[in-house]
Amino acid sequence: MSRADQPLHGDEPVTSRRERARLRREEIIGIASELFAERGYRGTSLADVAGRAGITEPGLLHHFGNKAGLLLAVIERRDLDSEAFAMELLGMEPAERLRALPEFARRNRERAGLAKLFTVLVAESLEPDAPGHDHFVARYRALRAIVADTIRSAREAGLTRAGLDPEVKAAEIIATLDGLQTQWLLDPEAVDIVAAVESYARTLERDLTGS
Amino acid sequence: MSRADQPLHGDEPVTSRRERARLRREEIIGIASELFAERGYRGTSLADVAGRAGITEPGLLHHFGNKAGLLLAVIERRDLDSEAFAMELLGMEPAERLRALPEFARRNRERAGLAKLFTVLVAESLEPDAPGHDHFVARYRALRAIVADTIRSAREAGLTRAGLDPEVKAAEIIATLDGLQTQWLLDPEAVDIVAAVESYARTLERDLTGS
Repeated sequence: MSRADQPLHGDEPVTSRRERARLRREEIIGIASELFAERGYRGTSLADVAGRAGITEPGLLHHFGNKAGLLLAVIERRDLDSEAFAMELLGMEPAERLRALPEFARRNRERAGLAKLFTVLVAESLEPDAPGHDHFVARYRALRAIVADTIRSAREAGLTRAGLDPEVKAAEIIATLDGLQTQWLLDPEAVDIVAAVESYARTLERDLTGS
Repeated sequence: MSRADQPLHGDEPVTSRRERARLRREEIIGIASELFAERGYRGTSLADVAGRAGITEPGLLHHFGNKAGLLLAVIERRDLDSEAFAMELLGMEPAERLRALPEFARRNRERAGLAKLFTVLVAESLEPDAPGHDHFVARYRALRAIVADTIRSAREAGLTRAGLDPEVKAAEIIATLDGLQTQWLLDPEAVDIVAAVESYARTLERDLTGS
């Protein structure tokens, strides 16, 4: 914002200053997300983030407290994004949800940076004392519960085959989508993520309905 | 080896000195593997490895050239391990292979460190310029080819349903096993890897045979 844009220089409303601080914070989170996706959380220093954001390290710490605080802010923003997807999915009929998977893969393909960020951060959070650990444990538990619920509803409506364990199947579905994403990120020339998810959605439909 | 064990001190055979150097190298690779599994490749410094191995950094560099050289030695050793598994699997009839998956999961459960090492190193190798990148690209291509070949043989023997694409199905199978492993490593209390793989082997049998 140039000086001329500021409504009353020297007598600026608090909300506008707050809004600018919020935007600056968002900008730094975006820069940290890019660096974490490229080099991982462990491979990125606070100095790297500060340098690319044109801020001092103390300035950075003022916004986020410490490196783990910056990580949690990055994770939180990524989650807002995937929650929007999840809500969209939950708004659909169970049968439609399966058909929507390739559409999500298509969108994800355009957002390889976010997908990479997620894959790297999960792997860096396996150890119980890693800063992202509790977050990802809770996230996967919630995700499995949502998918299991979807399967349970479909089962109650008589849409699925007998002998299906919703919890186990939920873990399996999430695992397949995660694993395909990793193979695609590693080798996009060899793995077409949209075709792979389209094919998996058909596998899943046969598996769930027993047809 | 104590001095008393040395056959002819001062006139020691070259092979024995070579053997000791080889054992020392193996020991350092083991230590680096543990550290990489715990903290990742990026989160581990050469000083960390040297410190735990009781060697100087120049001594470490003498064995491995640089940090990437150490990583490749760690990956190579892990691969010897998983190749032994793969050969065992390839020695079986296609139908038996499916039934062997839970047994491999059972063994893997006892080797969480190796599983963690693999998950972390793949995620740290997504970028094309990462030191492990080419290795993991080649490994996944080879793995998909082996699994696809297995499916193709089963298809030629009339054991699988029509309309199965061996390449796509191979990517899907590997993805599911990788993804289940990640969920288990992150949250072993919530995800029973052996039960999950047992269930997936049944899913896969139904899927492949169309039964």
